[in-house]
Amino acid sequence: MDTFECISKRSSVRAYQAKPIARSILEKLVDAGRRAPTARALEPWEFVVVTNREILKKLGETANSGDFIKDSSSCIAVFCKDTKYYLEDGSAATENILLAAADIGLGACWVAGDKKPYVGEVSGILGAPSDLKLVSLISLGWPRGETRQAKSRKLKDVIHWEGF
Amino acid sequence: MDTFECISKRSSVRAYQAKPIARSILEKLVDAGRRAPTARALEPWEFVVVTNREILKKLGETANSGDFIKDSSSCIAVFCKDTKYYLEDGSAATENILLAAADIGLGACWVAGDKKPYVGEVSGILGAPSDLKLVSLISLGWPRGETRQAKSRKLKDVIHWEGF
Repeated sequence: MDTFECISKRSSVRAYQAKPIARSILEKLVDAGRRAPTARALEPWEFVVVTNREILKKLGETANSGDFIKDSSSCIAVFCKDTKYYLEDGSAATENILLAAADIGLGACWVAGDKKPYVGEVSGILGAPSDLKLVSLISLGWPRGETRQAKSRKLKDVIHWEGF
Repeated sequence: MDTFECISKRSSVRAYQAKPIARSILEKLVDAGRRAPTARALEPWEFVVVTNREILKKLGETANSGDFIKDSSSCIAVFCKDTKYYLEDGSAATENILLAAADIGLGACWVAGDKKPYVGEVSGILGAPSDLKLVSLISLGWPRGETRQAKSRKLKDVIHWEGF
């Protein structure tokens, strides 16, 4: 899919078919993530791909704002070392994964990690080293039903020329 | 360009030709930015497009990690309201703009905003309301010389299955 078309069509998808995602696709998504820009070339990220139903269930129960993870086909957890710009780097990597997923026709949703009370418990479930910060959980699956991109603020509302 | 190809080819470009960027292209870049995912559907972003040489010069002098902004053709400043996830939202919007720029063949570089000592001064130059946080400055121009994507950590180094 053309990049701009992909950016335009991407939306948060929380309902999925009960159909697995091929390992090669999951690898491609992580490959998109690791190609994100990174401050000071630190590449602080680690990506955990979960396909095991029991672990997906635990993640959905723990990360309560992403309870739909339990019915997803896979979830990618994005962790970063605690660098000065880990949140920027991890967020850019997350967005790359979301776009790569949309490009393939997968549904995906960004579930917050950082600042959530469940960060420690999610890290425990995944056995993450203590020096890593959870940036996001990305639920993934082949979409069930209609998806839509709903942005209420138009271009003219958000663009400013030369200053405010 | 295909989305994954664009993700793969994107790299930080800091040297530009002295050639303007059409207004329609700059609008398309901001349009890509506003289509980013946003926590709680808050869409907290504002985008300032700078093409004025004097203002670009001031931005490059002030944001010293991005001194090449003074020789860029344009700069987009990404601001967000101070929401809980403003840094995630603003970073995703920044990455969308970088990818849309790469797709068009433009060179671009993410210059950090948040956590930099020059945030207040940059906000002043652009007349930003005090409730807005500077997330990033994106320098833009038609590339001069070779560009390259240099990631040292390969897929096998960053991917983990089912846990660490």
